[in-house]
Amino acid sequence: MQVPRLLINLKAYPQAVGERALGIVRQAERVWKETGVLIGIAPNLIDLTFLASRTDLPIFAQHVDPVDPGAHTGHISPELIKFVGARGSIINHSERQLMLKDIKASVDLLKKAGLTSVVCAPTPEESASVAVFGPDAVAIEPPELIGTGIPVSRAKPEVITESVKAVMDVNPSVKVLCGAGITSEEDVSAAVRLGSYGVLVASAVAKSSNPLRKIEELVEPFVKI
Amino acid sequence: MQVPRLLINLKAYPQAVGERALGIVRQAERVWKETGVLIGIAPNLIDLTFLASRTDLPIFAQHVDPVDPGAHTGHISPELIKFVGARGSIINHSERQLMLKDIKASVDLLKKAGLTSVVCAPTPEESASVAVFGPDAVAIEPPELIGTGIPVSRAKPEVITESVKAVMDVNPSVKVLCGAGITSEEDVSAAVRLGSYGVLVASAVAKSSNPLRKIEELVEPFVKI
Amino acid sequence: MQVPRLLINLKAYPQAVGERALGIVRQAERVWKETGVLIGIAPNLIDLTFLASRTDLPIFAQHVDPVDPGAHTGHISPELIKFVGARGSIINHSERQLMLKDIKASVDLLKKAGLTSVVCAPTPEESASVAVFGPDAVAIEPPELIGTGIPVSRAKPEVITESVKAVMDVNPSVKVLCGAGITSEEDVSAAVRLGSYGVLVASAVAKSSNPLRKIEELVEPFVKI
Amino acid sequence: MQVPRLLINLKAYPQAVGERALGIVRQAERVWKETGVLIGIAPNLIDLTFLASRTDLPIFAQHVDPVDPGAHTGHISPELIKFVGARGSIINHSERQLMLKDIKASVDLLKKAGLTSVVCAPTPEESASVAVFGPDAVAIEPPELIGTGIPVSRAKPEVITESVKAVMDVNPSVKVLCGAGITSEEDVSAAVRLGSYGVLVASAVAKSSNPLRKIEELVEPFVKI
Repeated sequence: MQVPRLLINLKAYPQAVGERALGIVRQAERVWKETGVLIGIAPNLIDLTFLASRTDLPIFAQHVDPVDPGAHTGHISPELIKFVGARGSIINHSERQLMLKDIKASVDLLKKAGLTSVVCAPTPEESASVAVFGPDAVAIEPPELIGTGIPVSRAKPEVITESVKAVMDVNPSVKVLCGAGITSEEDVSAAVRLGSYGVLVASAVAKSSNPLRKIEELVEPFVKI
Repeated sequence: MQVPRLLINLKAYPQAVGERALGIVRQAERVWKETGVLIGIAPNLIDLTFLASRTDLPIFAQHVDPVDPGAHTGHISPELIKFVGARGSIINHSERQLMLKDIKASVDLLKKAGLTSVVCAPTPEESASVAVFGPDAVAIEPPELIGTGIPVSRAKPEVITESVKAVMDVNPSVKVLCGAGITSEEDVSAAVRLGSYGVLVASAVAKSSNPLRKIEELVEPFVKI
Repeated sequence: MQVPRLLINLKAYPQAVGERALGIVRQAERVWKETGVLIGIAPNLIDLTFLASRTDLPIFAQHVDPVDPGAHTGHISPELIKFVGARGSIINHSERQLMLKDIKASVDLLKKAGLTSVVCAPTPEESASVAVFGPDAVAIEPPELIGTGIPVSRAKPEVITESVKAVMDVNPSVKVLCGAGITSEEDVSAAVRLGSYGVLVASAVAKSSNPLRKIEELVEPFVKI
Repeated sequence: MQVPRLLINLKAYPQAVGERALGIVRQAERVWKETGVLIGIAPNLIDLTFLASRTDLPIFAQHVDPVDPGAHTGHISPELIKFVGARGSIINHSERQLMLKDIKASVDLLKKAGLTSVVCAPTPEESASVAVFGPDAVAIEPPELIGTGIPVSRAKPEVITESVKAVMDVNPSVKVLCGAGITSEEDVSAAVRLGSYGVLVASAVAKSSNPLRKIEELVEPFVKI
């Protein structure tokens, strides 16, 4: 199970669907091949199969439902996303929050399917709380910073250091991604300095006029690792 | 906006994903071309793009979220399903029930996108209630009969006749589909006799060992219309 | 089943709990006795028993759960609120929205218990939609006006006239209450002129420095009916 | 903040409301005074004020909403339950499950209000997960045993020992209550032997024909501590 250093959430942005999503994937692939830094892409679910069948980059779902395949109209099981080639899923994003029991059940089903789980949490305490379930990574995203362009690494560095510490205390094998407001190389460097394994970004890449350049910029701090 | 006479919900059945879903679509296409009876397929969301790009049959989502494109991680907007070629969506299936306001918002956004809306309801009263929003169709599915193989047309014929009447009273342009327990030509005939415009089926086709034959059987009563 | 002309929602306002809630009830009682205009009070659930045992005014719950008495931790059934003397409940308030099926089930259980049901809805279409279930009243509250002090009767009079018409078309025995932004006698008069049977208010009374005077003012238009 | 050794959840049982709830409270008081073993009662919310004003026993809510007092129709804030004399609340009961963020917010608001928090969890992992938030106690209730009369201490003793260990590892000041299926002194003794601080029971007392005797029986193992 490999956790990307840079995980790009395409949300439901119209700038990042279909061929445009594929364009971002191609650019990420190029940067990955040039730098060796692992990049993951989490497209809107309608593009999951389309993208997963066209790249070796890890493609993530933005959400899965903790159900087995079967009579579940309108639900997407971990097994189904695996079937189409996805390599993991984001869980409990602040725009798609779950009950405690469904977070656990989703992590468990992703593990069982051999898929990577990245659970979002807004605070150090919630990060530690979900780390208990042993996901591959926890992504810290203070909701008040999401989409603001104000990086958590600058506005609230202690949220990262405390989350990293809290997660380590619970389960040292769980990696920490830093999300919310990351838009520049400097933000990523700060996140790494504060102990993050990687970063989770969305609009910085998905709405960029030059995604290639932005991806190159954002992976730079990992090249040096 | 065309409402299928036979709408096939593939749920999250492992027997009906990927190439197997495409197989069902191909067989439905063949029956449609031979008989002229319109058939719709509602695959699991991961297959939506894949199937919609390969057929002229109307492909439906099993669920949409009442959001516009944008920062909605893990949500699927009506505009996005249209973008990949879907022609409509099921709403409020008993396995994916919604708040009243989200049913209305989903119907409104589907209309705005020029897509067909089929809202599920378990009783005549709830059928009338959702018919107020002016969807293209209401699908009656008494939940206690879903997946039983006991057709509502036999077990509770009055549920259909009352629903048809109640929907007509509210909005005569809304069509009524009969769901829950439909497995044979006889069930479809009974549903049509009781006033249904069409039927909504799932396991009868999705889990059939011979989907072609089953589809041929189920459209038979509409050929004669 | 009697629907109050003035239904006062005390929400979870700290100004309107315990003895302060009782004070409002006493003042409402006085106005009721002087004018004959029926006034209902919907206190926070923790005050339901306390108030219902001290007054003949109809006391309403702000929400009920569509469950029968039994193993339902943290839920309040219609039968239980009846048991302590409540006379009805608000359902689907914009601050406590429900799935379609739970709106219907709540109305049905309240009817079965002989209690009055007042279902909230934000638009004429949703008003008609819930009127199908035959509640005693529908309360129209465009959510964008709640708590603003801008009365719907002034900002969007057509919302009231269309709701009244839509509800009448569906079920003429369902009364329409006008909510959102009602703060003065003039607002109530306008609501009545536009076809409302009564009004649903909250902060105008609950946060008033002189609830007695405010209640007297708000019932004035009904005295003349 | 005191955690009861025996916490009795009256759910929405018709056998345990109003005067009947008060009867159980009186019997629990008597046992408490005779034995010194602290007993808590969690009545249906409609009885909260009624009971809290009549006893010195700690009365618990069965659920609170993580909101501050204010415009929250149909919600009960920690401050409001404190206002009427409650001493704490159950959170995330399997019959009233919450999103992760709401569990944390509820624990935080209860702490801020000086109230005792008892968070329910079905497994050792979820127990550890919620222990991170530092509630006063975690109540382990494997949902498959709730209401069965099969005590977890007999059917799945390892669930208790593992939960106790997992909670201790996270936060040794969090107490563990054992729930689900406790009906006899023997069950309580086993729970205590396996490391539980106390027990959470419901039907064993609430539906008992002789609640006094049952309470006496269930506290017996704590008398000896």
